[in-house]
Amino acid sequence: MQSNHCRATAVASAQMGLKSHLVVRSKLKNSEDVPCNGNLLLDRMCGAQIYIVPWEGTYESHLKPSMINIARGIKETSGEDSYLIPLGGSNSVGLFGYITVFHEMISQGILENFDDIAFACGSGATAAGLAVGNYLNGSKLKIHALFVGSDAEFCKAAVNQMLHDVGLTEVRSEDMVDMIESPENQGYGLYTQEDLDYFIQVSIDTGVIVDPTYTGKAVKFLVQEMNNHPDRFKGRRVLFLHTGGVFGLYDGKMDNVLKKHEMTNRVKILND
Amino acid sequence: MQSNHCRATAVASAQMGLKSHLVVRSKLKNSEDVPCNGNLLLDRMCGAQIYIVPWEGTYESHLKPSMINIARGIKETSGEDSYLIPLGGSNSVGLFGYITVFHEMISQGILENFDDIAFACGSGATAAGLAVGNYLNGSKLKIHALFVGSDAEFCKAAVNQMLHDVGLTEVRSEDMVDMIESPENQGYGLYTQEDLDYFIQVSIDTGVIVDPTYTGKAVKFLVQEMNNHPDRFKGRRVLFLHTGGVFGLYDGKMDNVLKKHEMTNRVKILND
Repeated sequence: MQSNHCRATAVASAQMGLKSHLVVRSKLKNSEDVPCNGNLLLDRMCGAQIYIVPWEGTYESHLKPSMINIARGIKETSGEDSYLIPLGGSNSVGLFGYITVFHEMISQGILENFDDIAFACGSGATAAGLAVGNYLNGSKLKIHALFVGSDAEFCKAAVNQMLHDVGLTEVRSEDMVDMIESPENQGYGLYTQEDLDYFIQVSIDTGVIVDPTYTGKAVKFLVQEMNNHPDRFKGRRVLFLHTGGVFGLYDGKMDNVLKKHEMTNRVKILND
Repeated sequence: MQSNHCRATAVASAQMGLKSHLVVRSKLKNSEDVPCNGNLLLDRMCGAQIYIVPWEGTYESHLKPSMINIARGIKETSGEDSYLIPLGGSNSVGLFGYITVFHEMISQGILENFDDIAFACGSGATAAGLAVGNYLNGSKLKIHALFVGSDAEFCKAAVNQMLHDVGLTEVRSEDMVDMIESPENQGYGLYTQEDLDYFIQVSIDTGVIVDPTYTGKAVKFLVQEMNNHPDRFKGRRVLFLHTGGVFGLYDGKMDNVLKKHEMTNRVKILND
C-alpha cells in the first residue's frame, strides 16, 4: 500500500486537476483498517480513490486487470476516459521523467563534476531514463543501478522494452546500465534489523534521510560494492542520486526501531 | 514537540557534523510516551537529543533557561561549546535564511512576475528576512505576513529587534511588513474542525499540501483577506510562499479527520 509512485501520482493528478485511482496490494481485508500514515496520508489528502487487491497478487494477475475494470467502470458511469499507468510508471511515457532529470542535472552543471551515477532501482524506469539521457549525451558517465526489487530479470526486460518503445533498438540495457545485484538483498520492501540500524546510522552521520525500501538499501549496496571492488571506483567521482521516499518512513514500522536504538531515543524530561 | 524549526535544525546539524539538542514543550511527563511521529521521527533519525519542558512554559520562563543549563552541562562534561538558537530561529543570524531565499527568488527571475508576497508568520524570522531582502532590493514588493501565532505584539517586537540587530535602525517592521491578523485565528497551533476541512480541500483541489499550523492557516487567512478587501489586491500578482511543514501532518492528529471525510476515505477492497 505504501507506494511512493502512487503517492507522487496522486499529488501530481491533483495539481493537474485530474482524479486519481490507485490500485495497491495489501493483506488487509477491511477498508476500515486501511491506515492514514506514510504515503497513504498524502494519497488521502489529495482525494485519491484507493483500491486494495490481495497481497499475493502480481501486476499481471491483479493490478493490471483491476485497472482495466476500473477504467471501464469510470467510462460507463461518467463517460470519462482514463490513462492507465503501469507499475512504477515504467513505460515509455514514464521514461521521460528521468530523461528530464538528466537534462536538468546537465543544465545545472552538476554532471561535469562526476564520472558515475548510482541510484536505487526497483521497476527500472529511473535506470532507463538516466541511461537514455546518458546515451543521448554521448555516454560520458557510468550508470550503476542498485537493484532493490525482487526480480532483476523482469526489471532488465522492462528496461529493454522501454528502450525498444522509444526506438532505441541498437542498444540494450546491459550495455547502458551496470545493474548491481546484492546477495544481501532480501527482496522488494524487505530488510533485516541490521539493515534498519544501517539506514539510521546514515541519517545520524550525514543528515540525509534514507528510506528502507529504496535509498537506504541502495546506499548500503553501493558501499558494499565499493568495499568489494575498490579498483572499479578508484579515482572516480560517484554521484548518488537520492530518489526520495521519506514519506514511506511514516508507515509506523520505524517506531519500535527508533524507541529501541540508543541514538534515536534520546529523550529527557526536564522537571523544575 | 512537533517543531518544524527543531526538525530543520536537527537535520542541518547532522549534515554539518554538529550535535543537536532540542528543547521543546509538551504535556507528557514520561520520556517513554514521547512518540516517533511527525517532526519527531526526523529529529530522532538524526540522533537529536530531545528535552521536554512543561507545556505551560514560555520561551523566557523555561526554554531559554533550559538551553543555558544544557549548554553549561555540555561544556562541563565534554568541554564543547554550544550555539543557542532562539524560538523559531528568530534572531539576526536566522534572519539571513530568508534574505537568502529572497536573493534566490531574484536570481531565478521569480519575483519579476509578482507584486506581492504572502506567507505564514509565527515568530517573525521569515517576515523579517523577506522584509530586509525586499528593502535592500528597493522595496518593489508588498510583503504580507499572515500571522498564525498567539502574540502578534511579541512577533512585531521580535522583527524590530532583528532589524535593529543588523543595523537597520531607520526602518520599522510596520513600514516594511503588512501584518495580517485574522479574527478567526485560534492561536498558535490551534484550529477548528472547519479549518481542517478547509486545509484538506486545498490539497484535494490543488495538490499543494498545507499543514494546520502554518501554511494551511496562512492560505485561509489570505483568501479571507482577499474576499474582505478585494480592492487592495485588485490586479496585483500575489506570490504565496510555501514555507514547508508537511512532516507536522504526520503527528497522528489527521488520522481521524481523514477517516471521517468522504473525500479522504475513499477506500475499496477488491475481492476476486
